[in-house]
Amino acid sequence: MVKMDIAALHGFLAQAFPQVAQDYRVESVGENRLVMRLLVGDRHLRPGGTVSGPAIFALADVAVYLAILAMIGPQALAVTTNASLDFMRKPASGQDLLAQCELLKLGRVLAVGEVRIFSDGVPDPVARASLTFSIPPKG
Amino acid sequence: MVKMDIAALHGFLAQAFPQVAQDYRVESVGENRLVMRLLVGDRHLRPGGTVSGPAIFALADVAVYLAILAMIGPQALAVTTNASLDFMRKPASGQDLLAQCELLKLGRVLAVGEVRIFSDGVPDPVARASLTFSIPPKG
Amino acid sequence: MVKMDIAALHGFLAQAFPQVAQDYRVESVGENRLVMRLLVGDRHLRPGGTVSGPAIFALADVAVYLAILAMIGPQALAVTTNASLDFMRKPASGQDLLAQCELLKLGRVLAVGEVRIFSDGVPDPVARASLTFSIPPKG
Amino acid sequence: MVKMDIAALHGFLAQAFPQVAQDYRVESVGENRLVMRLLVGDRHLRPGGTVSGPAIFALADVAVYLAILAMIGPQALAVTTNASLDFMRKPASGQDLLAQCELLKLGRVLAVGEVRIFSDGVPDPVARASLTFSIPPKG
Repeated sequence: MVKMDIAALHGFLAQAFPQVAQDYRVESVGENRLVMRLLVGDRHLRPGGTVSGPAIFALADVAVYLAILAMIGPQALAVTTNASLDFMRKPASGQDLLAQCELLKLGRVLAVGEVRIFSDGVPDPVARASLTFSIPPKG
Repeated sequence: MVKMDIAALHGFLAQAFPQVAQDYRVESVGENRLVMRLLVGDRHLRPGGTVSGPAIFALADVAVYLAILAMIGPQALAVTTNASLDFMRKPASGQDLLAQCELLKLGRVLAVGEVRIFSDGVPDPVARASLTFSIPPKG
Repeated sequence: MVKMDIAALHGFLAQAFPQVAQDYRVESVGENRLVMRLLVGDRHLRPGGTVSGPAIFALADVAVYLAILAMIGPQALAVTTNASLDFMRKPASGQDLLAQCELLKLGRVLAVGEVRIFSDGVPDPVARASLTFSIPPKG
Repeated sequence: MVKMDIAALHGFLAQAFPQVAQDYRVESVGENRLVMRLLVGDRHLRPGGTVSGPAIFALADVAVYLAILAMIGPQALAVTTNASLDFMRKPASGQDLLAQCELLKLGRVLAVGEVRIFSDGVPDPVARASLTFSIPPKG
C-alpha cells in the first residue's frame, strides 16, 4: 500500500522544496507512519541554541505531508488547512529533532496526522502536533 | 507512582460530578495512561443515533482530568485551558465510546494529554483530542 | 445574502435538535455573523455554579453551525471536523453566555468560524473557539 | 499601560532575534493590540511564490509575543506553549503579510492572543491563529 519509499520521498522533496530539502531526512516510512529527522543547523536555532518554534512547525508539517504522499503518491497540491501544536519542553541543545508521524485519517478530501517530536536521544517529547491537509480532487 | 486506582477515581467522580459520574467508567489506569468508557445513552446522541460532539468533548476532557488526578491525587481545582479536537469519523450507532488517554507532560503548572476516541469494537478512531490543564499551586 | 433569519434558524434548530433547541436563542444574524445566547440552566453547570466546558463547546459549535446555515440554507449535513478552544476565565455564576461568531471562510467544501464567548454583561471573554465544518456536496 | 512603543519593540527584536528581526516591522501597537508586517522575501516563499506555512506561523508567533511584551515590558523568557492555526486562503503572490493581533487574556501565568493574517491590500484573511504563552514568574 505504501506508494513511495524513502528514496522516492527524498526525490520528491528535493524537487518540490529545493531550498529546504537538505534539512530533512526520512528515517522510516510505512503504512500510515513516517519518521523524519530535522538535521539541525544554525538557521533553525533561537538564541540560546534551541530549535525555534517555526522550525518545529515546519518539521511537523513536512512529516505529515510526506506521510500522506507515501500513501497516495506524489501530489504536490495537498495543502495544510489546520495545525494545532503544544510545545512542552525545551529541545536539547545541539541535537537533531525526530518527528514520529501517524496518519489517523486518510480520506478522499481530508487527511489528519499526529506528530510527536523528540530531541534525538531524549525520551520525553519536545512537542506534539496534529495537522489536517486538504487533498484536491484528481484530474 | 499512580496515586489513585480505579475505585478511587470512581469515588472522586461520584463526589465531584454527581450529575454525570454514572455516564463514565474508568477501564484502566496506569503511569500517565488511562482508558475511559462513555456508557452511551440517549442524552449523548444526535438525531440519527450517533454520539454528539459535546459528548465526545466531555469524554476527552474527563479522561485527561482523571489521568492527571491519578498521578497527582484528588485536586478538584485543575482546569482545562486549551482543547483541540479533530472529528474524523461518525461514531458507530449504539456503541459505547472508549477514550485512550496518554499524558505527554505533567509539569508543576501545566499538563498536556492526548486522547484517541473509538467506538467500542471499531479499529479506526472517531476523534482525537489534545488538552491542556492548568494545575493550581498547592496550599 | 443571508438566507435564514432568526425565525428560520429557530425553526431549524427545533426540528433538527429538539432535545437542546430550547437552550439556545439566536440574538442576531447577519452576513457571516451571528450572536447566540445559551439560556443557562442547571444541566449546564459544574459544581460551584459555573457553566461546564462541554456546554461552552456545544454553544460555540451550534453558533458556527447556524452562522453557516444562515448563509447557505438549511443543510443538516454539515459536520464539525476540527475545534480549538481556549478557556480563559471562569464564567460568571448564574449568567447566560453569549457567543459572538464570525465566519472567516465559507468555501465550497470547508467553512471556518471564530467565536468569542462572554458571560452576559461581563466585558472580558470566558473563552474563544475556532471551528471548521465540512460541507457535503449538494444533491 | 503600553510599556513599549514601536521603537522599543524594534530594539528588543533586533537584540533578541538578530537573524530574523529585519523581516518584521511593527506597524502599530496599543492596549492589547499590535499589527505586524512580514517583509516577504525569497526565504519565506514556497515554489509558486506564496508565503510558506512556517513563515505564517512565525509571523503569528512573533506578533503575539511582541503584543505581550508591549504590555509587560521586555521579558525574553515568555514561551509559546500552544498554537492553533487555520490556513484559509493562498497568500497573494509577492505581497507582504500583515498580522493583526489581539490579546484576549494577559494573566499572571498565561497569555492568549488571536491573530488574523492578511496579504497586504486583500480583505479576506489568509490565516487565523491563536497562541498561548507561558509567562515565567519574575525574579
